[in-house]
Parts: sequence; C-alpha cells; structure tokens
Amino acid sequence: MSAADLAAVLLAGHFRYDYDDPKSPANDRLIFSKGHASPLVYGLFRAAGVLSEEEFGTYRLFGSRLEGHPTPVLPWVDVATGSLGQGLPIGVGMALAGKQLDRLPFRVWVICGDSEMAEGSMWEAIEHASFYELDNLTAIIDVNRLGQRGETMHGWNLSYFARRLDACGWNAIEVDGHDVEQIEAAYEEAESTTGKPTAIVAKTLKGKGYSKVENQDGWHGKAIAEEAIEELGGVRNIVVDVPKPQAGKPHEFETADADWPTYEIGSKIATRRAYGDALAALGAADGKVVALDGEVSNSTYAEIFGKEHPERFFEMFIAEQQLVAAAVGMQVLGWKPFASTFAAFLSRAYDFVRMAAISRATIKLCGSHAGVSIGEDGPSQMALEDIAEFRAIHGSTVLYPSDGNQTVKLVRAMADLDGISFLRTTRADTPVIYGSDEEFPIGGSKTVREGDDVAIVGAGITLHEALEAAETLEAEGISARVIDLYSVKPIDAETLRGLQMPIVTVEDHWPEGGLGEAVLAALAGLEETPRVTKLAVRDLPHSGKPDQLLNAAGIDAEHIAEAARQLVRERATA
Amino acid sequence: MSAADLAAVLLAGHFRYDYDDPKSPANDRLIFSKGHASPLVYGLFRAAGVLSEEEFGTYRLFGSRLEGHPTPVLPWVDVATGSLGQGLPIGVGMALAGKQLDRLPFRVWVICGDSEMAEGSMWEAIEHASFYELDNLTAIIDVNRLGQRGETMHGWNLSYFARRLDACGWNAIEVDGHDVEQIEAAYEEAESTTGKPTAIVAKTLKGKGYSKVENQDGWHGKAIAEEAIEELGGVRNIVVDVPKPQAGKPHEFETADADWPTYEIGSKIATRRAYGDALAALGAADGKVVALDGEVSNSTYAEIFGKEHPERFFEMFIAEQQLVAAAVGMQVLGWKPFASTFAAFLSRAYDFVRMAAISRATIKLCGSHAGVSIGEDGPSQMALEDIAEFRAIHGSTVLYPSDGNQTVKLVRAMADLDGISFLRTTRADTPVIYGSDEEFPIGGSKTVREGDDVAIVGAGITLHEALEAAETLEAEGISARVIDLYSVKPIDAETLRGLQMPIVTVEDHWPEGGLGEAVLAALAGLEETPRVTKLAVRDLPHSGKPDQLLNAAGIDAEHIAEAARQLVRERATA
Repeated sequence: MSAADLAAVLLAGHFRYDYDDPKSPANDRLIFSKGHASPLVYGLFRAAGVLSEEEFGTYRLFGSRLEGHPTPVLPWVDVATGSLGQGLPIGVGMALAGKQLDRLPFRVWVICGDSEMAEGSMWEAIEHASFYELDNLTAIIDVNRLGQRGETMHGWNLSYFARRLDACGWNAIEVDGHDVEQIEAAYEEAESTTGKPTAIVAKTLKGKGYSKVENQDGWHGKAIAEEAIEELGGVRNIVVDVPKPQAGKPHEFETADADWPTYEIGSKIATRRAYGDALAALGAADGKVVALDGEVSNSTYAEIFGKEHPERFFEMFIAEQQLVAAAVGMQVLGWKPFASTFAAFLSRAYDFVRMAAISRATIKLCGSHAGVSIGEDGPSQMALEDIAEFRAIHGSTVLYPSDGNQTVKLVRAMADLDGISFLRTTRADTPVIYGSDEEFPIGGSKTVREGDDVAIVGAGITLHEALEAAETLEAEGISARVIDLYSVKPIDAETLRGLQMPIVTVEDHWPEGGLGEAVLAALAGLEETPRVTKLAVRDLPHSGKPDQLLNAAGIDAEHIAEAARQLVRERATA
Repeated sequence: MSAADLAAVLLAGHFRYDYDDPKSPANDRLIFSKGHASPLVYGLFRAAGVLSEEEFGTYRLFGSRLEGHPTPVLPWVDVATGSLGQGLPIGVGMALAGKQLDRLPFRVWVICGDSEMAEGSMWEAIEHASFYELDNLTAIIDVNRLGQRGETMHGWNLSYFARRLDACGWNAIEVDGHDVEQIEAAYEEAESTTGKPTAIVAKTLKGKGYSKVENQDGWHGKAIAEEAIEELGGVRNIVVDVPKPQAGKPHEFETADADWPTYEIGSKIATRRAYGDALAALGAADGKVVALDGEVSNSTYAEIFGKEHPERFFEMFIAEQQLVAAAVGMQVLGWKPFASTFAAFLSRAYDFVRMAAISRATIKLCGSHAGVSIGEDGPSQMALEDIAEFRAIHGSTVLYPSDGNQTVKLVRAMADLDGISFLRTTRADTPVIYGSDEEFPIGGSKTVREGDDVAIVGAGITLHEALEAAETLEAEGISARVIDLYSVKPIDAETLRGLQMPIVTVEDHWPEGGLGEAVLAALAGLEETPRVTKLAVRDLPHSGKPDQLLNAAGIDAEHIAEAARQLVRERATA
C-alpha cells in the first residue's frame, strides 16, 4: 500500500510495456526488489487487464501462479524476488544489457524497500550503475520507515538516502510518495536525465489509505483485505491503458566460424586457462555469449574473452553479488552470461544463485582455484565447499574437468544448458589426457582405465592422482579401474551402479556434499552396494606446495593406492 | 608496500597492544581487511619483536605459521582474512563489543584495500558503524588505485570515498599515505573524534619504494624480495616499542539461576519459539551470551532474548553479512554470540561462515523457517540448501530439533560448542514428544519408536511425519523403527551402522548434501549396506499450505509409508 501511488503513476504514463508480448526486447522492465509487495505486483497485473478477478483471489493458494513473493511462473515477472537486496543488482544487469548489448532505449524500473537499503548488495548495484552511467535505470525507494519488526535505521530521513546516492554519482530526487504530481515530475526527470541513474526517494506511509494500520508497526505481512478495501472506496476494477514501447530489435554481434582450442595429449595446461580459451572461441561463434568477472580475470582467464570481445565483457570488480546478479539480469534479455571468479568467492553470492534458480534463470558460473591444490595462498582462497554448494541448487549442473580438451567440450556444452551450471577449474597446469575429438556428454563419465579389482572415482585434479595410483597398484598386481566423474551433477548413476567392485572416491573438497556423497547417493538403493572409501579433505589446510597439500590432505596417489589396497584386502578376506 | 607507512606510524604511536598477552581484553585490535598484505602483517610482528628473522623466512612454506593470508595460527592474528570485504564488518563487531559489552576503551583499527570497497559488505559495516556511533573504530583505506588486474573503479579519486563515507555519517580524512605527519595527524584526529567512526582515506603507491614496480600494474601477488630490499636500504631489523594498553577488565553482566523453559508432552510449540525461550533463559544463566538478529527477531523469536537482555541484543537490520561478521568479531573478545535470521537468508553470509571456520571462530547460528513446511510465503523464504551449506563448513555442528524440549537442550549444548554451530528451526507449531528431562547429546540420535522391518530416519518437521507413517504401517503389520537424527553433524554413525534393515531417510531439503546423504556417508564402508530410499524435495516448491507442500514434495507420512512398504516388499522378495 505504501508503494501503490508510486506504482500507479508509473503504470499509467511511464512504464512502456506490451503485456501481450512480455518477452519483447523493446519492453521496459519493472522489478519489485521488495518482493513482499506481491499484492501490489498482482494488483498491477489486474490494472493492466491481464489478470482476472478470479485468479487474483487465488493469492498464496496451492497451485496458484500468485505466490507469496512473485516468481516467473507469471509471464510478466522476469525474476523472483523475496530475498531482499537482489532486485536492484539484477536491474543493473538488465540496464547494462540495454545500453551495451541490446542497445535499445528501454528503461529499467526497480521498486525498492527502505529496509533492504541495509543490504550491501544494493550499494554494489548503486556503485556499478553509476560507474557504467546507467541512465536507463531508475530506482524507486519506498521509504515507509517500517521494517518487519520496527523502524529502519533511518526512519523517514530521506536526505540520508539522497546524500548517499548523490555521493555515489546518482541523481537523487526526494518526493512525497503519495503526491501524484511530485511522482510524475520525478519520473519525467528520471527519463530526461543522462549520464547517470536516478533514484526517487519517496516518503510513504505503510498501510496507506487504511486508517487501522496506516503507519502502524506490527502489521508487516498480515492480511487485512475486506475492511481496507471498503475504506479505500471499494473494488473498482480500473483498467489502465499501459503505454506500449517503440518497436526495436536488439543489436546482434558478428559471429564467425568457431576456432576451438585444442591441446596436445601429454602437454600441460590448467583447466582455468582452457576455460578462457574456450570461452573466447565460444564468443566468436555465438554472439549471444557474454562474460563477466569479479576483478580476477587474469586468474580465471576470462580476460582472454575480454580481449577478443571487449564489447561483451563486463568487469564487475570485487562485488560477487553484483557479478551474479548482473548475469541474472542479462539472461532475462536472452543473453548467455558466463560469470567467473575464484570458486571460493562465489560463496559470497550463494543467496543470489539460490534465488536465480527460483527465477528459472539460465546462467553459467565458473569458479577457479578449487581445492587445496592451489598451494601457497592458503585456505581463504581454496574452494572446498563449492561442489556441495552448487549441487544443492535446484536444477543445477556441476562440472569438474581434469584436462584442457575436456574443459573446452564442457564449456561448449554449458552454452546450451538450461538453469544454473557451474564449472570448477583448477589453478595448476595438469596433463592433457584426452584427445580433442573426445566427447563428454553432460551426465556422463569416462572410464579412463579399465580394471576389475577396485574402482577409483575422481575428477579434476584428483583424476591425475588416481591414474598415478592405478599405475602403482598395477605393479603390485592390483587392477584398478579409473573413472573420471567430470559431470558431478547430473551423475552417471548407470555406470556407477554397474561397478560391482569396491570403490574409492577422491576429491579436493570437504567430505560433505561433494563428489563422494554424490557417488553414494547414486549407489543408494542397490541390492548389493559395493564398499566405498571416501577420500576428501578433512583437516583445515595451510599454505604449502600443491603436492605437499594434496599429500597432507590424504588425497594424493599414495593415499588413493593405500585406500584401494585396503579395500582389495578386505574383499579377499570377506 | 603501499600500506607500510600507514602501518608503521600506527604501530609506533597509536596501536596499544601487549604482544606478550595477545588475548588481553584491554588490547587494541588491528585487522588487515586486505589479507593479501600478509608480508606487511608479518613485517609488523618482526618490528614488534615477536617474530624471528628465521621464521619470517618461512613465508608460505608448508608447515609455517606465516600463511599466504593471515590466520589465527599466529597468536597476534584474531581473524583470518583473504576474502575481501570481511575485515571491516568483523571490526564493527569488535568495536560494538568494546563499547556495549566489554565497555573498555580499546580501539579497533582496520586496514582496508580500495578494491574491496566495491564489496557491499563494506558498506553494511560502514552504515552500522555510524548507526551505532562506533567512535572506537578507525578504517584506514589504502587507496593504491590498483587491483589485481588493473585500476579500480575510482582510481585515486579520494574524494569519492570521502564523500560517500561522510554521507554515511563518518568522519572522513583524506591524507597522503606516505606523508608521516599527515598520517600522524589523522590518527590523532581519529582518537579524539567522538560519536562517529573515522575513515582515513590515504593516497598510496602500490609497490612504494621499489622503483621497478612502484605504481605499476601487473605485479599483484608477485614476489620481488632481494632487489626491493636493497633499494629500500637493506635489512634493518628495526624493533618498535609498541605502546601498551591501559589495564582494564571487561564488564560482566549479572547472571541468575537459569529457568529453563519446559513444554508439556502433547502440547504444540514451534521450535523457533522454543529457540527464543531457551536463548533468553541461557542469557540469564550465562552473562557471556549475546544475541544478534537480521531484522526478523519477531519471526526467529530472538526478540524474547532482546526483551529480557536488551543490553546484549544487537539489531543488525537486513544485512546478513554484517550479522555474521559482528558475531565473529564479538567472539574474538570472548563473547558467545547467537545470530539468527531465516535459514534461507544465512546463505547471504555463506562466505563469512566459510571464513569464520578458517578464523577458528566460535559462533552459533540459528536459521528459522526451514523447508517447504513454511507454507504460503513461497520458495524465496524456504531454506532447502542450508543443511548442505552448513555441513560443508569445516568443523561445524548441524542440529535440527523436532520439538520444544529438544530445542532447549540443543541451545544449551550450543553454548559450549567450539566452532560453527547451526540450529535449523521450523516455522510451524509441532507436537511436543519429548519430556523436558530427556538428554540429547551432540552426535547422538533418538530411537523414538522401535521396529524391525524398516527404519525411518527423519529430523525436525519430517520426524512427525515419520511417526505418523509408522502408525499407518503398524496397522498393516509392518514394524517401523523411527530415528530422530537431531544431530545431523556430527552424526550418530554407530546407531545407523547397526540398523541391519532397510532405511527410509526423509528431509525437508533438497536431495543433495542433506540428511539423506549424511546417512549414506555414515553407512559407507559397511560390509553389507542396507538399502536406502532417500525422500527429499525434488521439484521447485510453490506457495500453499504446509501440509499440501509436504505432500507435493513427497515427504509427508503418506509418501514415507509408501517408501517403507516398497522396501519391505523388496526385502521379502529378495
């Protein structure tokens, strides 16, 4: 109710949108960053004439499209909100796409709550919007002063918000959020301001128009329907003639035949480097591919893409939440974003990835420097929880290549995957073991070495250790099969369930939620489950050389061979 | 090298610290938020006379305490840094403790990089420091203008930073970071400024003093030792007489005999409510216990603690990164912080939790509103990845109570746990099934119902569904054992490995990394592994009534009973 006047004026004269063609690239975009204002969101759809009164009455009921917080099950909702502080960073991604990719004059409007201005992610967005001069972006801040359990830090101190926004390089306008003329003037000013984004800081009343709750604490999220409608003048079923956008087609980038990188078997290349090579080649072949990085592109090798396709490369600086949010915003407009940073630092954006899945977003994430094998930089830089993190995202794909040619194939596959996909890359140079003509289907695995006594299942850096262990074991008369589980999710359950021999799993990751548990889950329910020994990082690592750290963690060839021996011995005595 | 002058002036005259007694509550605190400045951190320890030249030479070697980024394996390091943007929010926690808990005049100094000012978490810290008038906090911003791969967004635009800080209510001072007198004056001003924190925005040169790299791009994280030392005047082994702090003892809060809440068997209470009741009682008994919440204390019920112990309750608003960081800062000073928000929103702070484990921090986290059982609010508010998330934290404890009396016992146990502990609570009222005298040791489980044909393992909301399923099965002649796995990590492997019957696991969580996989991991390596059917949430949930959603997700009594029947049938035909 606090934002109703702001939204009504927007809809009636400024928001240019074809409700019959919600996917039109010419449409303005409207995000309710304060997703708990869902009754207003759905009210706008009523006003636009696209939602029946009957469906409106299904709010929050099982099976309804009108969920407690808006999601894209409705065609006019681009992204799910409800975790505060995400709408504006996503809006930055859309506005960046509008200016630099689509090159269309659509505007992005984001209705923000004042409570959520405490989220750092909002200020990442505000800084980036200014840096990229996103004058096509307008933030409408609904300062109703009341959060869920009381007053916000700043109450109705509008000038606090305005000063901060101004210091960030925004055009900040203070208005009475229930004064239609002031709102109208502010929207006009936003539309005519160039070179910088505009924020409309609006003083509003929570529960505006219903005297029983207006400006009262203690009513957050509580239903108040009938009586309020009566006081507000009854059901009116107003239909607004929402202005349509000018037709326009998004810019298309030139493409060329792809020149996929290949690496010679026996040579050495880091998978992170192959990621950069592959992404650059993909960018040449597919003009929809864009890349973003969190100020570490010389480590993730996204810089190779950046050099070859500077118009489609976005530096997001050390702001991982904005990095992922921008990718989510860009994919709404049909772009294929690949976002990269150290895998450890993607944990900074976990809530954004979680919400991206609820948004049914298709984004591609690459996390480099996985595991203890990074060496000297120490545990703060080592991702040891990322497989668990990304497996536990709805509908995700988790890929973990071990060599350069495999990385290229997996990056190519990622381009066409739906949903959230995650590629885990390794810092160190590793030997190329696959020819460039091998195929690596998503959901598959590779039996790299045949054997009958014991199976070793690894991926990435540990696959090479597994191969070395198998050599050692062969010399002792133990025949070890080595399986490359490059697709951790979806997993090749069929191959794993057919093994009929003891299994060693080995991963450069904590024991929880990683490759080992993925294997155990794939085996669950078998009539006879093989014995499984799970090798993983159990103690907090320190700095050191990669081989010292793999050894100390008990996940190198020596420890794999010992675990395999033990299983073979136990089987013999059983 | 860019921050060396800033650090030297601090050490020589302003930082009050007893290096022989690093745990002294009277000490000032110094955090290098830019943890990659570790050579400078260790250089200060050399200068303070507590680190030998020999050990200094072990930098980044295996087994050395001098890791690539500082960690608390050194007694003079309070918290690990290296994931940017965390030192200042942690410093806010320390400064809050200094003013409101310890009530001692120590100061908190945080050396920040300019690159990390892009992290939203820095601005959460800046806003909170101002709101709480932390004049005992000084941020020293080393503006060397160069990030890892090039220039930052703002280069040497010191006034950009100063304006933003000023707009946030800070005292911002611009200095030449290599001019000793300007630095000295700024520190004096910081010490004498009251009512607001001070930021010293210092223009510096990356690689200062070594002409080959000074102010040059492309040298981030690269070793340059001998030649640089020569140009800088050779090894000098200066020992600085660091000023000692005034002696002082931290404030102690009054305690009383604990009046632990109890609930009658058969009554109904939400575990989130029991959390609030228990925490308030714990706060009465233990004056070191403090509580923090992310503006949802009327939902997590941390508000009960807040009302009974207002001096030890901290409202962190909608800023989950700051919420967790403040807890980390407070525990450095010996407080026992419990931080709460919706479990879904703790994912916002995942990187902070990850780093807290590397900091060897002891913090207690409570995530409410877990799973689809929250009902109408929809998927954005449902934690479905939190068990995976927290299991994959080094040394963590993951607890998931199903009734009020159990919750009380687990909260009491958390108070004495080391490391990161996480309590998952449920929105809905659930029946009290345990007496208030039952004990629930960490790492244990409860066999709530005996049975021989099949075991059902659940926790939290699903335990009640499991009990209902067991009733149904009994009527059909199937004897189902029901196990309450309230301690998901550490797990009661002994009980699970002794089951010798098929198992149904059931969790209000995604299938990955949760309770089911924890059970599978506990069973791995058994000679004969029982068949396990894992029930978990597989499709993206929508809004609806809790029972509709538990049913739709296939984790209610009906689906549990069917999975158990199936296993019993298969066993009979095997």
